[in-house]
Amino acid sequence: MATPDTCYWGYLDREQPAVLDVEPGTTITIEAVTHHSGDAPDLLMDEGVTKIWDGIPESERSPGVHIMTGPINVRGAKPGDTLRVELLSMKPRMPYGSNCAANWGLFHQEFGKERITIYELVDMPSDGSFPTSARPMFGYDFKTLELYDIPGIVTPPDPAAREPFGRQVTVPVRPHLGLMGVAPEGERRSSIPPGVFGGNVDNWRFGPGATVHYPVFAEGAGFYVGDPHFAQGDGEMCGTAIEASLDVTLRLSLADDVSTTSPLLKTDTHWYTHGFGDDLDEAMKMAADQVLRLMVDRGGFTMDEAYSLASVAVDLGVTQVVDGTVGCHAGVALDLIG
Amino acid sequence: MATPDTCYWGYLDREQPAVLDVEPGTTITIEAVTHHSGDAPDLLMDEGVTKIWDGIPESERSPGVHIMTGPINVRGAKPGDTLRVELLSMKPRMPYGSNCAANWGLFHQEFGKERITIYELVDMPSDGSFPTSARPMFGYDFKTLELYDIPGIVTPPDPAAREPFGRQVTVPVRPHLGLMGVAPEGERRSSIPPGVFGGNVDNWRFGPGATVHYPVFAEGAGFYVGDPHFAQGDGEMCGTAIEASLDVTLRLSLADDVSTTSPLLKTDTHWYTHGFGDDLDEAMKMAADQVLRLMVDRGGFTMDEAYSLASVAVDLGVTQVVDGTVGCHAGVALDLIG
Repeated sequence: MATPDTCYWGYLDREQPAVLDVEPGTTITIEAVTHHSGDAPDLLMDEGVTKIWDGIPESERSPGVHIMTGPINVRGAKPGDTLRVELLSMKPRMPYGSNCAANWGLFHQEFGKERITIYELVDMPSDGSFPTSARPMFGYDFKTLELYDIPGIVTPPDPAAREPFGRQVTVPVRPHLGLMGVAPEGERRSSIPPGVFGGNVDNWRFGPGATVHYPVFAEGAGFYVGDPHFAQGDGEMCGTAIEASLDVTLRLSLADDVSTTSPLLKTDTHWYTHGFGDDLDEAMKMAADQVLRLMVDRGGFTMDEAYSLASVAVDLGVTQVVDGTVGCHAGVALDLIG
Repeated sequence: MATPDTCYWGYLDREQPAVLDVEPGTTITIEAVTHHSGDAPDLLMDEGVTKIWDGIPESERSPGVHIMTGPINVRGAKPGDTLRVELLSMKPRMPYGSNCAANWGLFHQEFGKERITIYELVDMPSDGSFPTSARPMFGYDFKTLELYDIPGIVTPPDPAAREPFGRQVTVPVRPHLGLMGVAPEGERRSSIPPGVFGGNVDNWRFGPGATVHYPVFAEGAGFYVGDPHFAQGDGEMCGTAIEASLDVTLRLSLADDVSTTSPLLKTDTHWYTHGFGDDLDEAMKMAADQVLRLMVDRGGFTMDEAYSLASVAVDLGVTQVVDGTVGCHAGVALDLIG
């Protein structure tokens, strides 16, 4: 369902018209298309992706960079509600993805250049689902433009520039949606910085089997997906993950048993709260505050008890450090709070 | 072997006389004693612990807070070498530990008080080794002094003040040494801030089965242990872990196959580098830089290749945020670099 008519590019906006209305409890399959398809168009672009590139003018791709599919209105959702997103399964659209060591990466100054590395899924199952590993195929220094700073760049394949990766290694696959959420409050904004509405959170745990809860700020919630990833480490150090298009089957509903003021993730083993800030200290403190509140509200602990348990059993992690607004998460075991 | 003659309190100092000389490759069992034993002296102090309290005058417990056992000289170790510490096994000295929500904790201002929570190991194996879980027993607001700001405080047991924990819950046990390392360069310094010499790193992965490598700065290395913990979360949010005395069996040797400029941890699955700083952004950047260098030096990747792999497969985490100098770590799978 990702076409020029069901996608928009580079922003979050509560005024964006919905492309679909669903009843709470509806299961849908939604295509999430990577904005890095142009890094290896021979491997990462198909007819549908090309149509999106051709169909959304460059002037409408701002001020951020991500291609979003949506928004989808959930009937009856209203401000103050909690949207529940159950990520049921994910399939790769094509078995290739791109990593860009970008100008917004942690060490761009030290490297003094940008570089693309193309990854390939290894031992693809015949049903098109995810294998366990991906491998780096080749890399090239990005020279199509001075900087990788506008969305939708297409770099024509240049076999001479593409340098094979030096060693046969693999990385674990961690398919997930880097960007997902609800319409934010306020005016149109860039898709790059994440926030309490979700958006570009870039937590690799937003994968198959996970459930994410968002506070609703607008009638209908305005749910969207984007920035699909094959794999990312906590931190997303060089600026991107393995960026690659995904088909995602998910269920949208309204949660009457969960209340949250920031994206709240549930996996098979843990709850994760999220914090955001201009620096990691601010983000970490917000994630820690959120997890204390979760332990009190959901776990039934006093604040004193929650604070002690959090110090001895909750892990604070770095979500990403490359989206302007940086992120931290705090994980608490289901065993502890149910 | 922890006695007033083999322990010192609150500082790191390359001039501290060694209490033992060992050949490289020697296995020893060393007692690490918690400086929080006074939080529940009826449960956490035995004859040996009391002797240390009585034998080391308060005037010699500064400027930090930790009781250290050591230093141990490793014969032949010289500046530029790498000390290898294999943590072979750990046993609890007593089945109780203390958590202090302290004035240096993340949310002290919000709580406006300090509070002790005593934990107990659950289902102790008959051989005295570690069970899998601990449970909070009771807590009390700390009122012995205005602030928990001098080392070696003893709070006499007060049954009326001890409030039973509200719910029967358990936390996973993660026995480890919060503090361990080599004699640092320069003058005597507080034991509280960690650094490239190790010290109070507070990474809960420094447990049984782990191997830690340190750069050597002084003849003989000057190895010490302290700050034993039953369990801690990444972050050590409230200011302490479950602080509890441990008996640790470890092997000290000189590594000729590893070179490092900061504590370098190897577990069954990962290598972890460590970064330190005045804030998390600085610590994170140092941990990330260290992991890139490890991937180049040990993994044989080019810097370009390492940067891409680190973004998609290395996890950056928050080690602790409560020791003045804060810490981050970066984990890379053994599979990736061998």
